Amino acid sequence: MEIKNDLLLRAARGEKTERTPVWVMRQAGRILKEYREVRGKLSGFIALVQNPDLAAEVTIQPVDILGVDAAIIFSDILVIPEAMGLPYTMEEGKGPRFPQTVKNEADLARLNIASEDSLGYVIEAIKVTKRELHGRVPLIGFAGAPWTIFCYMVEGKGSKTFSLARKTLYNDPAFAHKLMDKITESTINYLKSQIAAGADIVQIFDSWAGILPNSQYEEFSLRYIARIADAITEVPVIVFAKGAYASRRAIGAINCNVVGLDWNMDIEESRHLVGTDKTLQGNLDPAVLYADFETVKSETRKMIDQFGTFRHIANLGHGVYPDMEADKVKCFIDEVKAYSSSRH
Amino acid sequence: MEIKNDLLLRAARGEKTERTPVWVMRQAGRILKEYREVRGKLSGFIALVQNPDLAAEVTIQPVDILGVDAAIIFSDILVIPEAMGLPYTMEEGKGPRFPQTVKNEADLARLNIASEDSLGYVIEAIKVTKRELHGRVPLIGFAGAPWTIFCYMVEGKGSKTFSLARKTLYNDPAFAHKLMDKITESTINYLKSQIAAGADIVQIFDSWAGILPNSQYEEFSLRYIARIADAITEVPVIVFAKGAYASRRAIGAINCNVVGLDWNMDIEESRHLVGTDKTLQGNLDPAVLYADFETVKSETRKMIDQFGTFRHIANLGHGVYPDMEADKVKCFIDEVKAYSSSRH
Repeated sequence: MEIKNDLLLRAARGEKTERTPVWVMRQAGRILKEYREVRGKLSGFIALVQNPDLAAEVTIQPVDILGVDAAIIFSDILVIPEAMGLPYTMEEGKGPRFPQTVKNEADLARLNIASEDSLGYVIEAIKVTKRELHGRVPLIGFAGAPWTIFCYMVEGKGSKTFSLARKTLYNDPAFAHKLMDKITESTINYLKSQIAAGADIVQIFDSWAGILPNSQYEEFSLRYIARIADAITEVPVIVFAKGAYASRRAIGAINCNVVGLDWNMDIEESRHLVGTDKTLQGNLDPAVLYADFETVKSETRKMIDQFGTFRHIANLGHGVYPDMEADKVKCFIDEVKAYSSSRH
Repeated sequence: MEIKNDLLLRAARGEKTERTPVWVMRQAGRILKEYREVRGKLSGFIALVQNPDLAAEVTIQPVDILGVDAAIIFSDILVIPEAMGLPYTMEEGKGPRFPQTVKNEADLARLNIASEDSLGYVIEAIKVTKRELHGRVPLIGFAGAPWTIFCYMVEGKGSKTFSLARKTLYNDPAFAHKLMDKITESTINYLKSQIAAGADIVQIFDSWAGILPNSQYEEFSLRYIARIADAITEVPVIVFAKGAYASRRAIGAINCNVVGLDWNMDIEESRHLVGTDKTLQGNLDPAVLYADFETVKSETRKMIDQFGTFRHIANLGHGVYPDMEADKVKCFIDEVKAYSSSRH
């Protein structure tokens, strides 16, 4: 089906657009009362992820309510470790917990390579979403970067330092690479299934990029992201490596179309480092949305001015915080549309 | 009393040294079994901070056991909010909790400006430490940067996003500046008392520097650090702003002697940004200490080669993790000494 509003896809491929496309990380989530109503019907977050019809419903909500230029499938990066054989639980306010982690070669040997069979509920959610979107906007598929997934599989939960995961890199780099390999193969399968089911573009989230020194980041994370980006030839690829300041030039050199910037990355410097043959995505400080409407608008205009009108997809520099007001998020989206239209 | 090993002070002032001085953030702590024995005698961490004799004992332990070139007074950055009127508790594995936080003008008006009276136990610990050190090495005093303290006073605990604190900056910048002012005045009083009691150099820790966009970091954090650095004329000042990649040039322009680098900051780039009239401190990835002894040594030598032999104080790029082996920490320290001696 032809996509009516294909601004995001054209911007990702470096084509000219009438205005800057805009979406928001975590747009399908607790900021919307309509989401909270759907969520309230189920026993928990994971139950919602695993329910294709309701996942599709919350995926489409921000298109209707906020007017974003793309939907992103409602899911979680941790479906990959689960599909590889490590189930997880999600405790409200506490984050994910994996009862089993990967500690040794035996644990590693037991892991599956994930495939569509074990992730059928996401694929089904994408199919339902595509049907119900009627081609209004593109649908973004996504996965965690292998390094971020590795962190959870080794630590079993979030951490301030991820010292266990980092210990493995120094202590047993060969083991780390073997685990990273399995995660990468799983992720490629997963993204290809998402694309076959209808995802029009995919984003790779490297949430914990910022905790590795530069050289280690390139060895243990970026090379696997690059392998994924090389494998995904069907649709454009967005790489969002939060905190990877020192690796922006290297990210700009891999085979992706879009580089996401976090809110601390200087726009001009990032453009210089990434180069002009990639689209940049981001990067308003999400905390701006706590301010009054006038400040939201003026900060949004400032951001648009800094990025310019070419090869930019507007977004926040991080996921929207759950306690933010939907009206402020909408104000950001509306201002991107209005102001960038006047400038294009 | 004259200080016998004054390498750290000379390096801080930019004087030539026979070798690179070395100390380790969190050197007085759980990595040492001798520390754990002392700690076990008391009801908790805060009780140890508030016991001058035992605080002095654990402060000196790493000088004896690890052979570091400086002691750093055993304390916590959160003594400042406590002295201003917000007591805290420290739960094992959970971090600090403040039952009261600063939410409005009334809360702000109730806060004290901290002075020596409310921080007598730290000052006494410094006096005892100085007496028992017999001038062997310098004693480092310290405080949190106002922005980091602000985060705890507004949020009441640690946070992944510190969204409440950041909300305040956008929502009520005048209020934020008033609170920052009070914290800054308290911190200047506190550091001056530490110096009067015997601290030979002071370090300002900005643990949450990395969560603010550049321009906001300079407005809400760095200007207050600069005010502190201007006020401290008696001894050298070290500024360690973790994650402040985009502000390294600005930090290099303030009136401090030493700029601390975290483990993700590229050494050559940082030297270029900070300039040659400051000493750099850091920045081995602490996770290197999980590796075998040979790797610890080779990574340490690589770091020394990158910093060169002038205006460098060796350290880790973050506090040592509590589960690290003291022998590995000692290996790092010994290698800095041996290798830098051969190169100087």
